[in-house]
Amino acid sequence: MTLAELSATPEVLPAPAAEPESMQNGLAFICYSGDLEKTWAAMILASTAGAMGMPTKVFVTFWGLQTFVKPGKRVTGDNWMQKMLSIMSRPGIAHRKLSKMNFLGMGPWMMRKLAKQYNVASPAELLEMAQMMGVEFIPCQMTMDMFGIRYEDLIEGMGQPVGAATYLGFVGEGAKPIFI
Amino acid sequence: MTLAELSATPEVLPAPAAEPESMQNGLAFICYSGDLEKTWAAMILASTAGAMGMPTKVFVTFWGLQTFVKPGKRVTGDNWMQKMLSIMSRPGIAHRKLSKMNFLGMGPWMMRKLAKQYNVASPAELLEMAQMMGVEFIPCQMTMDMFGIRYEDLIEGMGQPVGAATYLGFVGEGAKPIFI
Amino acid sequence: MTLAELSATPEVLPAPAAEPESMQNGLAFICYSGDLEKTWAAMILASTAGAMGMPTKVFVTFWGLQTFVKPGKRVTGDNWMQKMLSIMSRPGIAHRKLSKMNFLGMGPWMMRKLAKQYNVASPAELLEMAQMMGVEFIPCQMTMDMFGIRYEDLIEGMGQPVGAATYLGFVGEGAKPIFI
Repeated sequence: MTLAELSATPEVLPAPAAEPESMQNGLAFICYSGDLEKTWAAMILASTAGAMGMPTKVFVTFWGLQTFVKPGKRVTGDNWMQKMLSIMSRPGIAHRKLSKMNFLGMGPWMMRKLAKQYNVASPAELLEMAQMMGVEFIPCQMTMDMFGIRYEDLIEGMGQPVGAATYLGFVGEGAKPIFI
Repeated sequence: MTLAELSATPEVLPAPAAEPESMQNGLAFICYSGDLEKTWAAMILASTAGAMGMPTKVFVTFWGLQTFVKPGKRVTGDNWMQKMLSIMSRPGIAHRKLSKMNFLGMGPWMMRKLAKQYNVASPAELLEMAQMMGVEFIPCQMTMDMFGIRYEDLIEGMGQPVGAATYLGFVGEGAKPIFI
Repeated sequence: MTLAELSATPEVLPAPAAEPESMQNGLAFICYSGDLEKTWAAMILASTAGAMGMPTKVFVTFWGLQTFVKPGKRVTGDNWMQKMLSIMSRPGIAHRKLSKMNFLGMGPWMMRKLAKQYNVASPAELLEMAQMMGVEFIPCQMTMDMFGIRYEDLIEGMGQPVGAATYLGFVGEGAKPIFI
């Protein structure tokens, strides 16, 4: 079929999609919290959604972004305030704390021990699994600016930093939002 | 109309549903928090949704599961870590604490007193109402394992324990997720 | 076509809509938390959604309602318990505290300072922007009763106080819920 023929039969052409449909029936998580339990919940849901073949994006913002800093990275930030924030709340997925019953690290230790005993994957394992399943983790540009976290501070495989409008675009395409 | 006729007129047959539609336009809550205020919010929304005839499921996980332990049950768990967790955070819907301004129990006491004064139903009353309205509360198997909570430790009328995949199945059927 | 003809050809008439469609593909936030970071997240998402033309409502409940008390208002409530609650947790969008790392106000001060440095709008600016974009902020009647907050205590432009059923009605009309 030539271009002329195509132009002559507009009714056989698909209507130009008002919006892409890639995220239709998908999930658009906001990973906002840096707490151990919520990180765990987000990773379980995202990796399971990925394994079930649901289009899944995870927008990583505020305290949640600290979770995705490389394991070896201890201090992030350019100025003293940003550095202090990263020192007060150690980044990395292995250093998440419980939101309550932390008891100087004993709570998280017990949780991790119980998880191992009952064959529950750790947040770090679930994150790796989710990425393998095609779940995309996308850092929030504004949070990176405010906390002074650079793209190279983050773990491998993260998406390009974006803002709230891009996230809401996924929702507009049909993804269901889940704020954790 | 015979089966032969039906086969001959496939266009009048409804397309085989790719997925069940029971949860279409319904709500799939995740009751994740054990805090008094969030428990309250979840119970108000779930019971109201039930009363409005929306298909409603509540997946009960992490700290949220403690809310659904029977009132009389003081200690849950098999090993010392699990028992300690239940002792540090008393289970049962009547023992939820505020996430802030707890002040050794004075905050929750004031909240409950104000609620009574203004005829706001308690979380326990709302839970009963929600169950009567057909809202199903479903415990998370993984949380039960980790905390050592048995099905018989939970209040009457809970659904069978399931995992994240079953929960996300409801969302796939068309239910909207709400993480509380 | 006359009315008689219309009545004679019911199959060409659109089915009477069971529910209004104004919130179709919109967002129905629950602004539940009074914490600085979550207030910020809610205001960024709501103002961006408004700017993108998505129908957006924000149901303001529990601690979230304190955020929408007029800046000049120091104490709210009729009885001593309500007054005490407002004294313990100062109302107004400029007085939100971080959920963690508050450090007697130093955490929020640093966050606000970093935000200014990186041209991130403050929660108060975002709220004003959201209202200008047509986002409706609707107070929860039950919370107003319990905390003794009067409609005139709230900032200008708030919607009429309603309950959970009205909120869930938006969701029934097709809005996606986001609980923050």
